[in-house]
Amino acid sequence: MSEGTGDRSTDDVRRRTPARNAELALLLEVAGTPKPGNVDRQRDHPDLHFDHFLAGAVGAAPGLRAAAGDGPLGEAFERAVCGMADQRGGNTQFGALLALCPLVRAASRDDSTHEGVEAAVADTTVDDACAFYRAFDHVGVAVGDPPEEMAALDVRRGSAAVPAVRERGLTLAELMAQSASVDGIAREWTEGFPRTFATAERVVADDGPVSERGARAFLHLLAEEGDTFVAKTSGEAAAEEATERARAVLAGDADAETVAAEFVERGVNPGTTADIVAAGLFVALERGVVV
Amino acid sequence: MSEGTGDRSTDDVRRRTPARNAELALLLEVAGTPKPGNVDRQRDHPDLHFDHFLAGAVGAAPGLRAAAGDGPLGEAFERAVCGMADQRGGNTQFGALLALCPLVRAASRDDSTHEGVEAAVADTTVDDACAFYRAFDHVGVAVGDPPEEMAALDVRRGSAAVPAVRERGLTLAELMAQSASVDGIAREWTEGFPRTFATAERVVADDGPVSERGARAFLHLLAEEGDTFVAKTSGEAAAEEATERARAVLAGDADAETVAAEFVERGVNPGTTADIVAAGLFVALERGVVV
Repeated sequence: MSEGTGDRSTDDVRRRTPARNAELALLLEVAGTPKPGNVDRQRDHPDLHFDHFLAGAVGAAPGLRAAAGDGPLGEAFERAVCGMADQRGGNTQFGALLALCPLVRAASRDDSTHEGVEAAVADTTVDDACAFYRAFDHVGVAVGDPPEEMAALDVRRGSAAVPAVRERGLTLAELMAQSASVDGIAREWTEGFPRTFATAERVVADDGPVSERGARAFLHLLAEEGDTFVAKTSGEAAAEEATERARAVLAGDADAETVAAEFVERGVNPGTTADIVAAGLFVALERGVVV
Repeated sequence: MSEGTGDRSTDDVRRRTPARNAELALLLEVAGTPKPGNVDRQRDHPDLHFDHFLAGAVGAAPGLRAAAGDGPLGEAFERAVCGMADQRGGNTQFGALLALCPLVRAASRDDSTHEGVEAAVADTTVDDACAFYRAFDHVGVAVGDPPEEMAALDVRRGSAAVPAVRERGLTLAELMAQSASVDGIAREWTEGFPRTFATAERVVADDGPVSERGARAFLHLLAEEGDTFVAKTSGEAAAEEATERARAVLAGDADAETVAAEFVERGVNPGTTADIVAAGLFVALERGVVV
């Protein structure tokens, strides 16, 4: 009945494996409310329902398990995305899974630190980059247009871009570095996950139900920095304004529920910020935060 | 990267294994609202939070995976309960897991029918009964007092009751049969899971988000039959009244949210009904209901 690498006996004090903590982090993230512009316990979007995120988390679990192993990280990510996509909402947690995979790999080596995840990132290969591109075949992800000279590497090409990736010999780490200025998760990959670890510390230091700590962390993250997903889908001005509204909520000058309604009405969806919350919750769980 | 028995390649159309569907069923069940007297998306209890159910489902997953295998079903159940208990809310899904384990076993044999689950039940052994008792060591479960002559088999004795179980040579199926008149899940075990399969049919025939179909099924189940957990914890009169209130909601004579508030105020918790919803959602997912 062993689940293989990483599972313990019933006597083991710490029962959840890194892969299970990652799955739980996804669930706690979507549950946390209010997270203006995102699906949460209290709010669905017109075409995206809370249930889709539940199925996304469960579907991603085998891929997260692979991320906790020793095999290619890119394949683990692709598997997680493929499983996540086994529901009718479409893209629920692509960015969160991209953040989680190297963190899960580091945790499986008992090294949930900047150095540990940087090592997991540095270990990625050209094959991992190819698997990353293949993941786009499984789900529609909103992305910005690449510079013209990089059209061959447009992620929307999915697996069709693989020859170009191999020709350039790009590792997944190098690919992420190229997008770091326009994508918050790519930036986490490239800079040692600073916002993720800061979020984990905030969650550890907070109290109350963990999903609610995540929601508070969401507001702080958005107040500190513009959401790159909003920038891609609604423009830079909308991203700046979303950050201003988050600051207003934290300052007590605006009501979170009102701002949440505004964002949904205007199609403002700070999804990258939510992804970083999921990653931060994972690290917090690994550091012993108890649900 | 294989997860072992039951996991498929990314090309497999049906991606979630029975164990994963069971985990998802637990999550969809707790999400569904309104379910008067139970924790759901919209409502926590004073000492039991939505997060506890998320962690309970994830924690139970390794045990559910074991239930989908060929090993002793009782150990699988005990493992699921032990994992479920890795959160501070206490008992979240004990009854649901008890219902799910034989259903998952039947599904793993591609036989999610009355006959299939009856076979899984009939296959249980004295060892399985002992494992069932050991599960009570891991979590506090509200139960009624057994008849005096059965005091040695009081489940609250947990593993201390194992010698008595072995002395009497009781299989888990026989144990469940002894409690069928006072416990709705034991009755499901004993009668081929009639309410579970009826719930699955209702969910399959319904439409809209699956968690919401589960919430509607909850009201119908409670309207049809008194909840044995309410009977144990609040008395028979309270159980009858809870059923009357569910009928009133379905008839349009009472508002579900008002009834939900009433139940919480009076400590009326139709948990067995919620457990059957989880089981029914599992069978519905196995039968192809898409999230």
